[in-house]
Amino acid sequence: MVPPSKDVLIDTHKRITPVVHKTPVLTSQFFNDLTGAELFFKCENFQKVGAFKYRGATNAVLQLADKQHAKGVIAHSSGNHAQALALAAKVNGIKAHIVMPINAPKVKSDAVEGYGAQITFCEPTLEARENTTKVLIKKFGYTEIHPFDNDHIIAGQATAAMELIEDYQHLDALIAPVGGGGLLSGTALAAAYFGKNVKAYAGEPAGADDAKQSFDAGRLIPSVKPQTIADGLLTSLSERTFRIIQEHVVDILTVSEGEIIQAMRWVWERMKIVIEPSSAVPIAAVIKNEELFKNKRVGIIVSGGNVDLSKSYFFNNEPR
Amino acid sequence: MVPPSKDVLIDTHKRITPVVHKTPVLTSQFFNDLTGAELFFKCENFQKVGAFKYRGATNAVLQLADKQHAKGVIAHSSGNHAQALALAAKVNGIKAHIVMPINAPKVKSDAVEGYGAQITFCEPTLEARENTTKVLIKKFGYTEIHPFDNDHIIAGQATAAMELIEDYQHLDALIAPVGGGGLLSGTALAAAYFGKNVKAYAGEPAGADDAKQSFDAGRLIPSVKPQTIADGLLTSLSERTFRIIQEHVVDILTVSEGEIIQAMRWVWERMKIVIEPSSAVPIAAVIKNEELFKNKRVGIIVSGGNVDLSKSYFFNNEPR
Repeated sequence: MVPPSKDVLIDTHKRITPVVHKTPVLTSQFFNDLTGAELFFKCENFQKVGAFKYRGATNAVLQLADKQHAKGVIAHSSGNHAQALALAAKVNGIKAHIVMPINAPKVKSDAVEGYGAQITFCEPTLEARENTTKVLIKKFGYTEIHPFDNDHIIAGQATAAMELIEDYQHLDALIAPVGGGGLLSGTALAAAYFGKNVKAYAGEPAGADDAKQSFDAGRLIPSVKPQTIADGLLTSLSERTFRIIQEHVVDILTVSEGEIIQAMRWVWERMKIVIEPSSAVPIAAVIKNEELFKNKRVGIIVSGGNVDLSKSYFFNNEPR
Repeated sequence: MVPPSKDVLIDTHKRITPVVHKTPVLTSQFFNDLTGAELFFKCENFQKVGAFKYRGATNAVLQLADKQHAKGVIAHSSGNHAQALALAAKVNGIKAHIVMPINAPKVKSDAVEGYGAQITFCEPTLEARENTTKVLIKKFGYTEIHPFDNDHIIAGQATAAMELIEDYQHLDALIAPVGGGGLLSGTALAAAYFGKNVKAYAGEPAGADDAKQSFDAGRLIPSVKPQTIADGLLTSLSERTFRIIQEHVVDILTVSEGEIIQAMRWVWERMKIVIEPSSAVPIAAVIKNEELFKNKRVGIIVSGGNVDLSKSYFFNNEPR
């Protein structure tokens, strides 16, 4: 497997720029003081569907052949990829079918339905998700758009870091969360191709640390019963993303659940932006590894802002 | 009482611009679709201390005479004015003393303390607050900086709308929340002096509708036992703010608690920004009054983003 080239990333950026948000980059005196670093938050929580996933999904959908276009796309996803693919398909007049585990947050299945996609619910196991998807593909001839094990997806996710590097050319480091590794491998490729000595790091929950284990062992070690509040990061790497990460990522930094929650709370309280737990993971990693990032200019990919507010005090009661 | 003139507002803007944030203006396709209007959210939740109050407090502190400067400032406030004055004083090397009701949210008293101000707690009645303040002024010679019944404060708060009008000259309407009326009277003056036919509106909680009642009756009618989740809007107007509002505000639109909570939830969910309930009030008013704002370009002053997240699901447990 050859990873997407520099030219592929440049073409991807041109392709999707007209139809995705160029998200803002925020800074925070509070976090700079806290870390001793200079942080640049690339706010993909402000991306369409509230997550970077819209970049990759858009890129994948825009490259379908006419025949594929006519039949539609499918993915199994409990999270932001489902929403992203549903909207990207809708915008381009394509049918989308999403296989979701029955325990997916209602806010996410509602959003997918709101974007006009068809949903098939299945048991919450990887096996059930894959089998259900296969059956539907056989029946309807859909093209599967995998959430990360797909070069179009990786190239699309890379564009967030490309925009950040373009606007802040003096960055010393880039850090992204890692689940399946689509965002991280895209970010690492962008750093390698377009950065001036930009080191790529990942933040990963200690409770779902397959990437860290694989990285240290030099071979793919899938997660066994991962557990973390960062529900976007439960997935394990694929060979495709692992190889890119092995070559282009400097280190994977793990953080505890408490560190994730604390970082997320500080962002909500101090920066006044809504981020999801997965987004707080690289921020927590920068806070934790003070010596590593001190006096460095660090770009952080804030991956998304989709949280279930019905669990929040203000919103868990019927309006008075 | 003559309200601050156009020249006073221009001078104020020049005075405080170097030391306050020029906050961003956000737009939202979701809210445009919902209302049929084109909305421009002036995000004072991103202002220093998380609220527009820093504008007025800064302006007031910067105009103290040398003698006043030496003795320090005082205010009674349970909310954002307390934080704003504490920080504005600190930045300018002035002592600040804040009188707070004992039932003030801990997050707010912590913030005030964090800015180095001295706090005296008192009973949660206006009488106790005023008396405690008087005693401390007598003892220490402080200058009182009233949160809204003060022309320097009104002129400072006006600068948020001035920035918005400067950047979006084609606005048809401006809307701000109303509590004591400092922000609203400043906003209305800015609309009158600098807008091209910009109509000024207010949003007010139905459970604390002294401004609406006063406006309709043509005389000041203070609130009796106001109750609303919008804790920044419990205060009643003063003669000073009422007169400006009478002259320059087109209408005051009241909204229910349920409408406030729904608007706030939509902002958190769809715009991914943290706003406090008071900020949701004018947004709820625009949503409610569809016919009034349809096809209009409406600037909304998003007043602040200080909420107590310890009441939120994610944050009400000790980190795991």
